[in-house]
Amino acid sequence: MRNSEPIEKLIASFRNLPGVGYKTAERYAYYCVGADIKEIEELTKNIMSAKTEVKFCKECGGYTNKEVCSICQSRNKEVICVVAEPKDISVMEKVKNYNGVYHVLGGTISPLENKGPDDLRIKELLSRINENKTKEVIMATNPDVEGDATAMYIARLLTPLGVKVTRIAQGISMGTDLEYADEITLSKALEARRVIK
Amino acid sequence: MRNSEPIEKLIASFRNLPGVGYKTAERYAYYCVGADIKEIEELTKNIMSAKTEVKFCKECGGYTNKEVCSICQSRNKEVICVVAEPKDISVMEKVKNYNGVYHVLGGTISPLENKGPDDLRIKELLSRINENKTKEVIMATNPDVEGDATAMYIARLLTPLGVKVTRIAQGISMGTDLEYADEITLSKALEARRVIK
Repeated sequence: MRNSEPIEKLIASFRNLPGVGYKTAERYAYYCVGADIKEIEELTKNIMSAKTEVKFCKECGGYTNKEVCSICQSRNKEVICVVAEPKDISVMEKVKNYNGVYHVLGGTISPLENKGPDDLRIKELLSRINENKTKEVIMATNPDVEGDATAMYIARLLTPLGVKVTRIAQGISMGTDLEYADEITLSKALEARRVIK
Repeated sequence: MRNSEPIEKLIASFRNLPGVGYKTAERYAYYCVGADIKEIEELTKNIMSAKTEVKFCKECGGYTNKEVCSICQSRNKEVICVVAEPKDISVMEKVKNYNGVYHVLGGTISPLENKGPDDLRIKELLSRINENKTKEVIMATNPDVEGDATAMYIARLLTPLGVKVTRIAQGISMGTDLEYADEITLSKALEARRVIK
Protein backbone atom coordinates (compact mmCIF):
# COMPACT_ATOMS: atom_id res chain seq x y z
CA MET A 1 0.00 0.00 0.00
CA ARG A 2 1.65 3.18 -1.20
CA ASN A 3 -0.62 5.55 0.73
CA SER A 4 -2.13 5.69 4.20
CA GLU A 5 -5.40 3.83 4.68
CA PRO A 6 -7.89 6.72 4.38
CA ILE A 7 -6.26 7.81 1.11
CA GLU A 8 -6.22 4.27 -0.33
CA LYS A 9 -9.90 3.86 0.59
CA LEU A 10 -10.76 7.12 -1.16
CA ILE A 11 -8.75 6.07 -4.23
CA ALA A 12 -10.77 2.84 -4.34
CA SER A 13 -14.00 4.86 -4.21
CA PHE A 14 -12.93 7.27 -6.95
CA ARG A 15 -11.97 4.34 -9.16
CA ASN A 16 -15.66 3.45 -9.39
CA LEU A 17 -16.27 6.65 -11.39
CA PRO A 18 -16.41 5.97 -15.15
CA GLY A 19 -13.02 5.99 -16.88
CA VAL A 20 -11.00 6.60 -13.70
CA GLY A 21 -7.90 4.46 -13.12
CA TYR A 22 -5.56 4.30 -10.14
CA LYS A 23 -3.42 7.26 -11.16
CA THR A 24 -6.33 9.63 -11.77
CA ALA A 25 -8.08 8.47 -8.59
CA GLU A 26 -4.89 9.14 -6.65
CA ARG A 27 -4.69 12.68 -8.06
CA TYR A 28 -8.29 13.32 -7.01
CA ALA A 29 -7.64 11.89 -3.53
CA TYR A 30 -4.56 14.06 -2.98
CA TYR A 31 -6.55 17.05 -4.20
CA CYS A 32 -9.26 16.32 -1.61
CA VAL A 33 -6.74 15.99 1.23
CA GLY A 34 -5.18 19.31 0.28
CA ALA A 35 -8.42 21.17 -0.45
CA ASP A 36 -10.24 23.56 1.83
CA ILE A 37 -12.60 21.77 4.24
CA LYS A 38 -15.50 23.97 3.02
CA GLU A 39 -14.97 22.83 -0.55
CA ILE A 40 -14.96 19.20 0.59
CA GLU A 41 -18.17 19.67 2.58
CA GLU A 42 -19.73 21.27 -0.49
CA LEU A 43 -18.59 18.37 -2.69
CA THR A 44 -19.95 15.64 -0.39
CA LYS A 45 -23.20 17.57 0.13
CA ASN A 46 -23.66 17.97 -3.62
CA ILE A 47 -22.99 14.27 -4.26
CA MET A 48 -25.60 13.32 -1.66
CA SER A 49 -28.16 15.87 -2.93
CA ALA A 50 -27.78 14.68 -6.52
CA LYS A 51 -28.29 11.10 -5.39
CA THR A 52 -31.25 11.75 -3.08
CA GLU A 53 -33.09 14.63 -4.78
CA VAL A 54 -32.85 13.60 -8.41
CA LYS A 55 -35.60 11.26 -9.57
CA PHE A 56 -37.24 10.28 -12.84
CA CYS A 57 -39.60 12.73 -14.56
CA LYS A 58 -43.13 11.26 -14.45
CA GLU A 59 -43.60 11.98 -18.12
CA CYS A 60 -40.36 11.51 -20.04
CA GLY A 61 -38.34 9.40 -17.59
CA GLY A 62 -35.39 11.81 -17.62
CA TYR A 63 -33.66 13.06 -14.48
CA THR A 64 -35.26 15.93 -12.58
CA ASN A 65 -35.77 17.16 -9.03
CA LYS A 66 -39.46 18.00 -9.69
CA GLU A 67 -42.46 15.80 -10.45
CA VAL A 68 -42.33 16.77 -14.12
CA CYS A 69 -39.07 18.07 -15.62
CA SER A 70 -38.71 21.59 -16.96
CA ILE A 71 -38.52 20.34 -20.56
CA CYS A 72 -41.83 18.44 -20.31
CA GLN A 73 -43.40 21.48 -18.63
CA SER A 74 -42.51 23.98 -21.31
CA ARG A 75 -41.98 22.33 -24.70
CA ASN A 76 -43.99 21.36 -27.75
CA LYS A 77 -45.34 17.85 -27.17
CA GLU A 78 -46.17 17.16 -30.80
CA VAL A 79 -42.60 16.02 -31.33
CA ILE A 80 -41.01 13.39 -29.08
CA CYS A 81 -37.33 12.53 -29.33
CA VAL A 82 -36.75 8.98 -28.05
CA VAL A 83 -33.42 8.26 -26.33
CA ALA A 84 -32.01 5.23 -24.52
CA GLU A 85 -30.76 6.79 -21.27
CA PRO A 86 -31.48 9.92 -19.16
CA LYS A 87 -27.98 11.25 -19.88
CA ASP A 88 -28.72 11.28 -23.61
CA ILE A 89 -31.20 14.13 -23.05
CA SER A 90 -28.38 16.41 -21.96
CA VAL A 91 -26.40 15.37 -25.04
CA MET A 92 -29.29 16.13 -27.42
CA GLU A 93 -29.96 19.44 -25.66
CA LYS A 94 -26.71 20.75 -27.16
CA VAL A 95 -28.81 21.25 -30.28
CA LYS A 96 -30.20 24.63 -29.38
CA ASN A 97 -33.10 24.76 -31.84
CA TYR A 98 -34.88 21.55 -30.86
CA ASN A 99 -38.12 22.50 -29.15
CA GLY A 100 -39.82 19.14 -28.66
CA VAL A 101 -39.86 16.84 -25.65
CA TYR A 102 -37.98 13.61 -24.91
CA HIS A 103 -38.79 10.05 -23.95
CA VAL A 104 -36.32 7.81 -22.16
CA LEU A 105 -36.60 4.11 -23.01
CA GLY A 106 -34.32 2.94 -20.22
CA GLY A 107 -32.05 1.02 -22.60
CA THR A 108 -32.30 -0.63 -25.99
CA ILE A 109 -33.46 -4.03 -27.25
CA SER A 110 -30.47 -6.28 -26.63
CA PRO A 111 -30.79 -10.06 -26.77
CA LEU A 112 -27.25 -10.37 -25.40
CA GLU A 113 -28.25 -8.55 -22.22
CA ASN A 114 -31.57 -10.35 -22.18
CA LYS A 115 -33.42 -7.07 -22.73
CA GLY A 116 -36.60 -7.20 -24.83
CA PRO A 117 -39.21 -4.57 -25.77
CA ASP A 118 -41.16 -5.29 -22.55
CA ASP A 119 -38.20 -4.09 -20.48
CA LEU A 120 -38.31 -0.66 -22.14
CA ARG A 121 -40.70 2.24 -21.49
CA ILE A 122 -42.63 1.63 -24.72
CA LYS A 123 -46.09 1.40 -23.15
CA GLU A 124 -45.49 4.82 -21.60
CA LEU A 125 -44.47 6.15 -25.01
CA LEU A 126 -47.69 4.88 -26.56
CA SER A 127 -49.89 6.54 -23.96
CA ARG A 128 -47.99 9.84 -24.31
CA ILE A 129 -48.52 9.71 -28.07
CA ASN A 130 -52.23 9.15 -27.54
CA GLU A 131 -52.62 11.94 -24.99
CA ASN A 132 -50.54 14.53 -26.79
CA LYS A 133 -51.58 13.80 -30.37
CA THR A 134 -47.91 13.45 -31.21
CA LYS A 135 -47.12 13.98 -34.89
CA GLU A 136 -43.49 12.88 -35.02
CA VAL A 137 -41.28 10.53 -33.05
CA ILE A 138 -37.53 11.03 -33.62
CA MET A 139 -35.48 7.94 -32.80
CA ALA A 140 -32.17 9.12 -31.28
CA THR A 141 -30.82 5.83 -29.99
CA ASN A 142 -27.12 5.17 -30.64
CA PRO A 143 -26.09 4.25 -34.20
CA ASP A 144 -25.21 0.63 -33.33
CA VAL A 145 -26.93 -2.73 -33.81
CA GLU A 146 -29.08 -2.43 -30.67
CA GLY A 147 -29.94 1.22 -31.29
CA ASP A 148 -30.90 0.54 -34.90
CA ALA A 149 -32.98 -2.52 -33.97
CA THR A 150 -34.82 -0.55 -31.30
CA ALA A 151 -35.52 2.30 -33.73
CA MET A 152 -36.83 -0.20 -36.30
CA TYR A 153 -39.03 -1.94 -33.72
CA ILE A 154 -40.65 1.30 -32.58
CA ALA A 155 -41.10 2.50 -36.16
CA ARG A 156 -42.99 -0.68 -37.05
CA LEU A 157 -45.14 -0.25 -33.96
CA LEU A 158 -46.01 3.41 -34.46
CA THR A 159 -46.22 3.92 -38.23
CA PRO A 160 -49.52 1.93 -38.53
CA LEU A 161 -50.97 4.29 -35.88
CA GLY A 162 -50.37 7.24 -38.19
CA VAL A 163 -47.31 8.60 -36.37
CA LYS A 164 -44.34 9.69 -38.45
CA VAL A 165 -41.22 7.98 -37.09
CA THR A 166 -37.84 9.38 -38.13
CA ARG A 167 -34.24 8.40 -37.35
CA ILE A 168 -31.37 10.85 -36.74
CA ALA A 169 -29.07 10.82 -39.77
CA GLN A 170 -25.94 8.72 -39.88
CA GLY A 171 -22.92 9.80 -41.88
CA ILE A 172 -19.55 11.46 -41.69
CA SER A 173 -19.07 13.64 -38.59
CA MET A 174 -18.23 17.30 -39.18
CA GLY A 175 -14.48 17.82 -39.21
CA THR A 176 -13.67 14.13 -39.69
CA ASP A 177 -11.13 13.26 -42.32
CA LEU A 178 -12.64 10.85 -44.86
CA GLU A 179 -9.51 8.73 -44.55
CA TYR A 180 -10.34 7.86 -40.96
CA ALA A 181 -14.04 7.10 -41.41
CA ASP A 182 -14.93 3.42 -41.03
CA GLU A 183 -16.51 1.32 -43.78
CA ILE A 184 -20.00 1.15 -42.29
CA THR A 185 -20.18 4.90 -41.70
CA LEU A 186 -19.00 5.55 -45.27
CA SER A 187 -21.56 3.13 -46.66
CA LYS A 188 -24.36 4.79 -44.62
CA ALA A 189 -23.19 8.22 -45.72
CA LEU A 190 -23.27 7.14 -49.37
CA GLU A 191 -26.68 5.55 -48.99
CA ALA A 192 -28.16 8.69 -47.40
CA ARG A 193 -26.66 11.06 -50.00
CA ARG A 194 -28.70 14.16 -50.81
CA VAL A 195 -29.02 16.42 -53.82
CA ILE A 196 -26.96 19.61 -53.35
CA LYS A 197 -29.28 22.58 -53.64
CA MET B 1 -28.91 24.97 -17.85
CA ARG B 2 -28.91 21.58 -19.49
CA ASN B 3 -29.47 19.58 -16.30
CA SER B 4 -31.61 19.91 -13.19
CA GLU B 5 -30.16 22.03 -10.38
CA PRO B 6 -28.75 19.28 -8.11
CA ILE B 7 -26.92 17.75 -11.09
CA GLU B 8 -25.51 21.10 -12.25
CA LYS B 9 -24.31 21.83 -8.71
CA LEU B 10 -22.57 18.46 -8.54
CA ILE B 11 -20.99 19.06 -11.95
CA ALA B 12 -19.62 22.37 -10.64
CA SER B 13 -18.13 20.58 -7.62
CA PHE B 14 -16.54 17.83 -9.70
CA ARG B 15 -14.99 20.45 -11.99
CA ASN B 16 -12.78 21.51 -9.08
CA LEU B 17 -10.95 18.17 -9.27
CA PRO B 18 -7.66 18.44 -11.18
CA GLY B 19 -7.99 18.03 -14.95
CA VAL B 20 -11.78 17.64 -14.93
CA GLY B 21 -13.79 19.63 -17.49
CA TYR B 22 -17.55 19.96 -17.92
CA LYS B 23 -18.01 16.80 -19.97
CA THR B 24 -16.09 14.56 -17.55
CA ALA B 25 -17.78 16.17 -14.52
CA GLU B 26 -21.15 15.53 -16.15
CA ARG B 27 -20.27 11.84 -16.68
CA TYR B 28 -19.29 11.54 -13.01
CA ALA B 29 -22.48 13.29 -11.90
CA TYR B 30 -24.71 11.00 -13.97
CA TYR B 31 -22.81 8.04 -12.60
CA CYS B 32 -23.51 9.20 -9.04
CA VAL B 33 -27.22 9.68 -9.72
CA GLY B 34 -27.45 6.18 -11.17
CA ALA B 35 -25.23 4.46 -8.62
CA ASP B 36 -26.34 2.43 -5.63
CA ILE B 37 -27.02 4.61 -2.56
CA LYS B 38 -24.60 2.48 -0.52
CA GLU B 39 -21.79 3.20 -2.95
CA ILE B 40 -22.53 6.93 -2.76
CA GLU B 41 -22.57 6.85 1.05
CA GLU B 42 -19.22 5.04 0.94
CA LEU B 43 -17.80 7.62 -1.49
CA THR B 44 -18.86 10.65 0.57
CA LYS B 45 -17.70 8.98 3.80
CA ASN B 46 -14.30 8.21 2.29
CA ILE B 47 -13.89 11.78 0.99
CA MET B 48 -14.66 13.15 4.44
CA SER B 49 -12.38 10.66 6.21
CA ALA B 50 -9.47 11.41 3.90
CA LYS B 51 -9.95 15.13 4.55
CA THR B 52 -10.36 14.90 8.33
CA GLU B 53 -8.14 11.95 9.31
CA VAL B 54 -5.13 12.55 7.10
CA LYS B 55 -2.54 14.90 8.57
CA PHE B 56 1.16 15.58 8.15
CA CYS B 57 3.68 13.08 9.52
CA LYS B 58 5.56 14.71 12.43
CA GLU B 59 8.87 13.61 10.98
CA CYS B 60 8.81 13.68 7.19
CA GLY B 61 5.83 15.97 6.53
CA GLY B 62 4.13 13.42 4.26
CA TYR B 63 0.47 12.44 4.54
CA THR B 64 -0.49 9.90 7.20
CA ASN B 65 -3.31 9.12 9.62
CA LYS B 66 -0.88 8.39 12.46
CA GLU B 67 1.51 10.63 14.40
CA VAL B 68 4.47 9.24 12.47
CA CYS B 69 3.92 7.63 9.06
CA SER B 70 4.62 3.95 8.42
CA ILE B 71 7.63 4.77 6.26
CA CYS B 72 9.32 6.84 8.99
CA GLN B 73 8.50 4.11 11.50
CA SER B 74 10.11 1.27 9.62
CA ARG B 75 12.81 2.48 7.24
CA ASN B 76 16.53 3.18 7.27
CA LYS B 77 17.00 6.80 8.33
CA GLU B 78 20.56 7.09 7.09
CA VAL B 79 19.22 7.98 3.66
CA ILE B 80 16.67 10.78 3.22
CA CYS B 81 15.00 11.43 -0.12
CA VAL B 82 13.88 15.08 -0.31
CA VAL B 83 10.71 15.84 -2.31
CA ALA B 84 8.66 18.99 -2.87
CA GLU B 85 5.12 17.76 -2.10
CA PRO B 86 3.50 14.95 -0.07
CA LYS B 87 2.16 13.35 -3.27
CA ASP B 88 5.72 12.93 -4.58
CA ILE B 89 6.35 10.29 -1.90
CA SER B 90 3.77 7.99 -3.47
CA VAL B 91 5.41 8.59 -6.87
CA MET B 92 8.89 7.71 -5.58
CA GLU B 93 7.51 4.65 -3.77
CA LYS B 94 6.98 3.03 -7.17
CA VAL B 95 10.71 2.27 -6.95
CA LYS B 96 10.44 -0.92 -4.95
CA ASN B 97 14.04 -1.19 -3.75
CA TYR B 98 14.37 2.19 -2.06
CA ASN B 99 14.56 1.60 1.67
CA GLY B 100 15.27 5.09 3.01
CA VAL B 101 12.90 7.71 4.39
CA TYR B 102 11.52 10.91 2.85
CA HIS B 103 11.40 14.60 3.67
CA VAL B 104 8.74 16.91 2.26
CA LEU B 105 9.87 20.50 1.69
CA GLY B 106 6.41 21.88 1.07
CA GLY B 107 7.36 23.41 -2.27
CA THR B 108 10.49 24.66 -3.99
CA ILE B 109 12.42 27.91 -4.00
CA SER B 110 10.50 30.11 -6.44
CA PRO B 111 11.07 33.86 -6.61
CA LEU B 112 8.07 34.16 -8.95
CA GLU B 113 5.77 32.77 -6.27
CA ASN B 114 7.62 34.72 -3.61
CA LYS B 115 8.81 31.49 -2.01
CA GLY B 116 12.27 31.51 -0.39
CA PRO B 117 14.24 28.91 1.62
CA ASP B 118 12.58 30.10 4.85
CA ASP B 119 9.20 29.01 3.52
CA LEU B 120 10.40 25.42 3.11
CA ARG B 121 10.90 22.74 5.76
CA ILE B 122 14.69 23.05 5.68
CA LYS B 123 15.20 23.62 9.42
CA GLU B 124 13.31 20.38 10.06
CA LEU B 125 15.56 18.62 7.53
CA LEU B 126 18.67 19.86 9.36
CA SER B 127 17.50 18.60 12.73
CA ARG B 128 16.56 15.20 11.27
CA ILE B 129 20.03 14.92 9.76
CA ASN B 130 21.58 15.71 13.13
CA GLU B 131 19.41 13.27 15.06
CA ASN B 132 19.64 10.38 12.63
CA LYS B 133 23.27 10.71 11.58
CA THR B 134 22.09 10.80 8.00
CA LYS B 135 24.75 9.83 5.46
CA GLU B 136 23.04 10.72 2.20
CA VAL B 137 20.37 13.17 1.10
CA ILE B 138 18.86 12.44 -2.32
CA MET B 139 17.30 15.50 -3.95
CA ALA B 140 14.19 14.35 -5.85
CA THR B 141 12.63 17.70 -6.68
CA ASN B 142 11.27 18.11 -10.22
CA PRO B 143 13.82 18.56 -13.02
CA ASP B 144 12.90 22.19 -13.69
CA VAL B 145 14.44 25.57 -12.83
CA GLU B 146 12.90 25.73 -9.34
CA GLY B 147 13.62 22.08 -8.57
CA ASP B 148 17.24 22.38 -9.69
CA ALA B 149 17.77 25.63 -7.74
CA THR B 150 16.32 24.08 -4.60
CA ALA B 151 18.54 21.01 -4.96
CA MET B 152 21.58 23.24 -5.45
CA TYR B 153 20.69 25.39 -2.40
CA ILE B 154 20.33 22.37 -0.11
CA ALA B 155 23.52 20.76 -1.47
CA ARG B 156 25.51 23.92 -0.65
CA LEU B 157 23.98 23.94 2.83
CA LEU B 158 24.59 20.29 3.68
CA THR B 159 27.85 19.37 1.95
CA PRO B 160 29.96 21.44 4.40
CA LEU B 161 28.30 19.48 7.23
CA GLY B 162 29.73 16.27 5.80
CA VAL B 163 26.48 15.00 4.30
CA LYS B 164 26.59 13.53 0.81
CA VAL B 165 23.94 15.24 -1.31
CA THR B 166 22.94 13.55 -4.56
CA ARG B 167 20.47 14.44 -7.31
CA ILE B 168 18.27 11.95 -9.19
CA ALA B 169 19.64 11.52 -12.72
CA GLN B 170 18.24 13.44 -15.65
CA GLY B 171 18.30 11.98 -19.14
CA ILE B 172 16.23 10.21 -21.76
CA SER B 173 13.19 8.37 -20.37
CA MET B 174 12.99 4.64 -21.03
CA GLY B 175 11.00 3.92 -24.17
CA THR B 176 11.27 7.49 -25.48
CA ASP B 177 12.24 7.93 -29.09
CA LEU B 178 15.39 10.10 -29.31
CA GLU B 179 13.67 12.08 -32.04
CA TYR B 180 11.10 13.41 -29.58
CA ALA B 181 13.46 14.28 -26.72
CA ASP B 182 13.89 18.01 -26.15
CA GLU B 183 17.21 19.85 -26.42
CA ILE B 184 17.78 20.35 -22.71
CA THR B 185 17.08 16.71 -21.87
CA LEU B 186 19.45 15.60 -24.64
CA SER B 187 22.16 17.94 -23.41
CA LYS B 188 21.76 16.68 -19.81
CA ALA B 189 21.83 13.07 -21.03
CA LEU B 190 25.04 13.71 -22.95
CA GLU B 191 26.63 15.49 -19.99
CA ALA B 192 25.79 12.63 -17.61
CA ARG B 193 27.02 9.89 -19.99
CA ARG B 194 28.53 6.80 -18.39
CA VAL B 195 31.06 4.17 -19.45
CA ILE B 196 29.34 1.00 -20.63
CA LYS B 197 30.55 -1.89 -18.48
